[in-house]
Amino acid sequence: MIKERLFTPGPVPLPPQVIKALGQQIIHHRTPEFTQIFLQTRENLQKLLNTNRDVLMFASSGTGAMEASIVNFFNEGDKVLVINAGKFGERWRDLGKTFGLNVIDYQIEWGKTYDREKVSQIVKENPDLKGILVQHSETSTTTLHDLNFLAQISNSLEDCLLVVDGITSVGVYKVFPEEIGIDILVTGSQKALMLPPGLSILYYSQKAENRLERSNLPKYYFSVKAESKKQSKGQTAYTPAINLIIALNESLKMILEEGLDNLEKRHSILADMTREAMKELGLKLLSESPANSATGVFTPENIDADKFRKELQKIGVRVAGGQDHLKGKIIRIAHMGYFDYLDMIEVISAVEITLYKMGYKVELGKGVKKAQEILLNNLQEQ
Amino acid sequence: MIKERLFTPGPVPLPPQVIKALGQQIIHHRTPEFTQIFLQTRENLQKLLNTNRDVLMFASSGTGAMEASIVNFFNEGDKVLVINAGKFGERWRDLGKTFGLNVIDYQIEWGKTYDREKVSQIVKENPDLKGILVQHSETSTTTLHDLNFLAQISNSLEDCLLVVDGITSVGVYKVFPEEIGIDILVTGSQKALMLPPGLSILYYSQKAENRLERSNLPKYYFSVKAESKKQSKGQTAYTPAINLIIALNESLKMILEEGLDNLEKRHSILADMTREAMKELGLKLLSESPANSATGVFTPENIDADKFRKELQKIGVRVAGGQDHLKGKIIRIAHMGYFDYLDMIEVISAVEITLYKMGYKVELGKGVKKAQEILLNNLQEQ
Repeated sequence: MIKERLFTPGPVPLPPQVIKALGQQIIHHRTPEFTQIFLQTRENLQKLLNTNRDVLMFASSGTGAMEASIVNFFNEGDKVLVINAGKFGERWRDLGKTFGLNVIDYQIEWGKTYDREKVSQIVKENPDLKGILVQHSETSTTTLHDLNFLAQISNSLEDCLLVVDGITSVGVYKVFPEEIGIDILVTGSQKALMLPPGLSILYYSQKAENRLERSNLPKYYFSVKAESKKQSKGQTAYTPAINLIIALNESLKMILEEGLDNLEKRHSILADMTREAMKELGLKLLSESPANSATGVFTPENIDADKFRKELQKIGVRVAGGQDHLKGKIIRIAHMGYFDYLDMIEVISAVEITLYKMGYKVELGKGVKKAQEILLNNLQEQ
Repeated sequence: MIKERLFTPGPVPLPPQVIKALGQQIIHHRTPEFTQIFLQTRENLQKLLNTNRDVLMFASSGTGAMEASIVNFFNEGDKVLVINAGKFGERWRDLGKTFGLNVIDYQIEWGKTYDREKVSQIVKENPDLKGILVQHSETSTTTLHDLNFLAQISNSLEDCLLVVDGITSVGVYKVFPEEIGIDILVTGSQKALMLPPGLSILYYSQKAENRLERSNLPKYYFSVKAESKKQSKGQTAYTPAINLIIALNESLKMILEEGLDNLEKRHSILADMTREAMKELGLKLLSESPANSATGVFTPENIDADKFRKELQKIGVRVAGGQDHLKGKIIRIAHMGYFDYLDMIEVISAVEITLYKMGYKVELGKGVKKAQEILLNNLQEQ
């Protein structure tokens, strides 16, 4: 008997409270009962993002909310800068191009973050930029992109929106769009919000709201105006993902009960434990600017990462691999969502065991020890 | 203690098998395990529609698949005829207009179906029609629109697609698109497929497929080409609604086990029991061409339908009301999905009790008796 442990950067394990909420008879969405749950969920999303502004839910995966960010707030021909540092950066680019935006595709080596001077230069040469599109956490490379600098740059321009994919950062970090200066922020259900996929979330600033009337791109299912009018009253323009919203209400309660400071700190410790343990084992991290949502790490040169993942599964650990040119080269270990300290000890231990089994010279327990030290240091600090 | 019984035309009650499937720990979608479930579900959807062609699933509610029907198969300026006989007919019109189609909006009094001569005339005057858009079952008026005539008309034109919203007909009737001559058929999860909302389904014919390359409307999240390439291999372009697909696999097993002939017959009996009982009680049906998915019925002139619905709830029955000008005038009782004969007896009895309570002269048991007779006649026939 081997248990299945999910350490993939989405979907992530569901807490029992969420499973319980999902495994219930359906209720109708045009009822006071659902409206109350909807409005409570909405309010808790606002608490999560520390805002009183509109936060919308769509029945779609995260990509749907990314599409909504384009079609509601931009016009054909609008010039936008895409910070393209991985698979999801490419998605911003492809979405932009699909809907006729004039995309400046700033390609960055996978595992790196943007160069400030380069961004400054692009912005200087293109003062007519209408948007800067970025991942806060680029999941494919487990890289964190600093938002403060981009917000500053974006705000210095006449009419530029900072559009942030926070799909793997909201619920890992305190992502407060008003404080940071984010104009559009999207996230999805199956990451740090600890739900199945199928629900996406969109915040937009006053500056973005001013664009709603002007945007001439066609939208229907992802219409922010249509949803905004309804959702503030606890309803939706089209049938909502009822059971996911009910489950989100549960997971947000958990998150707010833990507290956003504690939540951010926990994720930071989990990520730190994992990163330092991997380094201790002689493995190289993928990212120069690692995010706390997941850790990407190269397997040793003579060990194929996908074979390594199969071996990991034999002792009950499922991690993700690399995409495109990183396929077979890296594994990615999730920290976001329903994970605690001993979960990380498990996965670190599984990596040690598997390295050993596959003939890599490793001192057993060395990574675990390092992780324990980091944990204890942090617990003593608190 | 009063039980909550849902008789709304979507969402409809979930069977225990589905609830059980939903209340489970998540699995990852890029695994052989999920791929196998996905392909099995896809195959069972093909069985449901009696086709070997592509049947796609989107993480969205039904409106998403309606949008997919427009943006993948039409061009800006394409002339289409919308059979607009209710709230969902309006949705086809609005979707068409949003994406720049040239919409002929054939408005029909709510509760009626289209006039053949009128359609023939429109088609004669517009031989360049690129599409006819219709609801098979118009849920807002509980009306069935005959598809055979429209398919014949559509096929007589040079390049016209018959686009059918089957959201409340698939799983109620045998809707076999190839046999009927439907080019695009969409449905949703929260109706006869007995799931929560959040999953939509799209079938397209070879004739429709030929349009894919030519269509110049922008699409990304709802890209049929992107999904088709992936889904035939058991994957999806964007993160799928994992737990709904797993649950769909369960509900499709139930449906196929019952058999499509039996399923169609059961729905026909349920609807017939309800319609005849309502007439027996002296109530007037809304639709001249009633569908077996739900029955719309006028409350007596001096009884406000929404007050009537509130009274019904007190004894445990939730039905839907009317929309727009039918608000306060009708109630709608669902038959589709997880309903059997005694469920209809319950709702008919609740209507009798409530009519009596609200001062309407009614012979108690008269509607129930009629329904029982119909049921027995049908059971004896079988």
